[in-house]
Amino acid sequence: MKLYDLALSGNCYKVRLLTALAGIPLEIAAVDFLAGEHKRPPLSDLNPWCEIPILVDGDLVLRDSQAILVYLAARYAGESWLPRDPAGLAMVMQWLSTAANEIQNGPGSARLVDKFGYPLDKGDTLKRSARILPLIDAHLAAHRWLALERPTIADCAVFPYVALAPEGGVSLETYPHIRQWIGRIKELPGFAPMPGL
Amino acid sequence: MKLYDLALSGNCYKVRLLTALAGIPLEIAAVDFLAGEHKRPPLSDLNPWCEIPILVDGDLVLRDSQAILVYLAARYAGESWLPRDPAGLAMVMQWLSTAANEIQNGPGSARLVDKFGYPLDKGDTLKRSARILPLIDAHLAAHRWLALERPTIADCAVFPYVALAPEGGVSLETYPHIRQWIGRIKELPGFAPMPGL
Repeated sequence: MKLYDLALSGNCYKVRLLTALAGIPLEIAAVDFLAGEHKRPPLSDLNPWCEIPILVDGDLVLRDSQAILVYLAARYAGESWLPRDPAGLAMVMQWLSTAANEIQNGPGSARLVDKFGYPLDKGDTLKRSARILPLIDAHLAAHRWLALERPTIADCAVFPYVALAPEGGVSLETYPHIRQWIGRIKELPGFAPMPGL
Repeated sequence: MKLYDLALSGNCYKVRLLTALAGIPLEIAAVDFLAGEHKRPPLSDLNPWCEIPILVDGDLVLRDSQAILVYLAARYAGESWLPRDPAGLAMVMQWLSTAANEIQNGPGSARLVDKFGYPLDKGDTLKRSARILPLIDAHLAAHRWLALERPTIADCAVFPYVALAPEGGVSLETYPHIRQWIGRIKELPGFAPMPGL
């Protein structure tokens, strides 16, 4: 099973984090992102959206970090990381949407501007960050983990770009519950860091 | 089971569409959105994010239209609308992320500007639309449905804001495969329309 990966990508890191925490063997194929390897065959054939991560497991090819987390958890990690009961599944799913939208377009995109010079509207990324982070902090004031009473792929999906927020000029100083949750994740057995954390 | 709903919301319509297609009984509670009912108790207690739809089923309260689709399909609609096998689940999940991010922030947000006067960057919504719609059109050139060889909640999640794109000044004229897919969805037994479609 192979992950087309970029060390500095928080979306790729979501996948590396789950596989580290859940002990899932994974072959890492480093993509030369700066040279545009993801925009050319064979990678653009695997994912016409020209994004990474891409997971290849036998005949199955998956784009989208949230979908890859769902697959790996459902197939290799068991109920602990992604429950099968409808309510538990939906509780996790709420946070996968948050990761795909509010986190990606908030702190994730703020970092793309500051660290990689992406031509995005920095003010918009800061506005989105200032809306979502207080909601998450308030949630974590009453919960140890995002979706359930244990770590799940919801935490893996939201963690990278929240923890990396300072790289986009988004301070976590005023979000004590988020900082405590980051600390709890870093203490999980098997935790793997990434550059910037 | 109650849905806090707004007739003109594409996110709420995702839920109404699945329940219509899959024959799931649902009580509709119309929210007075213009009066800000979603920003005050009791709704803001149910969803501190102050967004709709909100689904209440017994003790379970869910925000996020994608999570609600996952719950309803897994609990009430069976494998046809959301498979349980890891690969099938992930194939659907890919499109739930697309609905939450690219569609919401592309054609979905373009419509918010034109139809409801939201103070968003219209140019950004058009740029995002112009990136995602050709990718979806190309995908649908080779597939009848988005995720699998049958309609799933992936189609329910992506359909509303793609079909409503013209309300945001985003023409579907150059996307013939998307228009054919819209036609196929409208012909599904039990299909329920919404204003603007």
